[in-house]
Amino acid sequence: MPDCIFCKIINREIPSQVVYEDEELLAFKDIHPVAPVHVLAIPKKHVVSVNDLADEDAEVVGKIFLVIKELASQLGIAETGYRVVTNSGEDGGQEVGHLHFHLIGGKPLGRKIG
Amino acid sequence: MPDCIFCKIINREIPSQVVYEDEELLAFKDIHPVAPVHVLAIPKKHVVSVNDLADEDAEVVGKIFLVIKELASQLGIAETGYRVVTNSGEDGGQEVGHLHFHLIGGKPLGRKIG
Repeated sequence: MPDCIFCKIINREIPSQVVYEDEELLAFKDIHPVAPVHVLAIPKKHVVSVNDLADEDAEVVGKIFLVIKELASQLGIAETGYRVVTNSGEDGGQEVGHLHFHLIGGKPLGRKIG
Repeated sequence: MPDCIFCKIINREIPSQVVYEDEELLAFKDIHPVAPVHVLAIPKKHVVSVNDLADEDAEVVGKIFLVIKELASQLGIAETGYRVVTNSGEDGGQEVGHLHFHLIGGKPLGRKIG
């Protein structure tokens, strides 16, 4: 999608600190981290949100969680703990219209999730 | 797992308000909702957290997100928006040691996710 900031990050039109990449997905550091570890994992396919997942997209979502598991280990938060969040639409507070999963950790996170 | 409260919910040893069930997963209303819609979606296989996902568990995680998409529509929050959260370990604030995904919506959720 030409005007999507995350598609531009995938295409290297906008720089980012990539922590994982393969043919189907990308993970990079959030530029406004809310905790010592704050990574975004996204499918390279432009899917707006969970609302827009096609049946065939389930596979890449599963893979994203395996990558998140590995990144949590590599980034030193597997044992201390972490949160994975995806927001959809206005009530969710979604800020970029390209499906993304926040991996957040490195400090005790608040109990408030909604 | 004999002492797991979510395994007991799956096995109907503890009652819950089930909103979706198939062979591999269950979704039910959270007994301490933080928003008008608060559902937990879990794999029936006892997996403790994202840390403990085996490669073959990726498929059920993908399916959980397709079910969450459908539930968001059925529960009237697809258009208004929602948040999906899974917590791992102490820093994440994980309260039950069986992988679960919170589906939260029905009000504007805070921007604070970590």
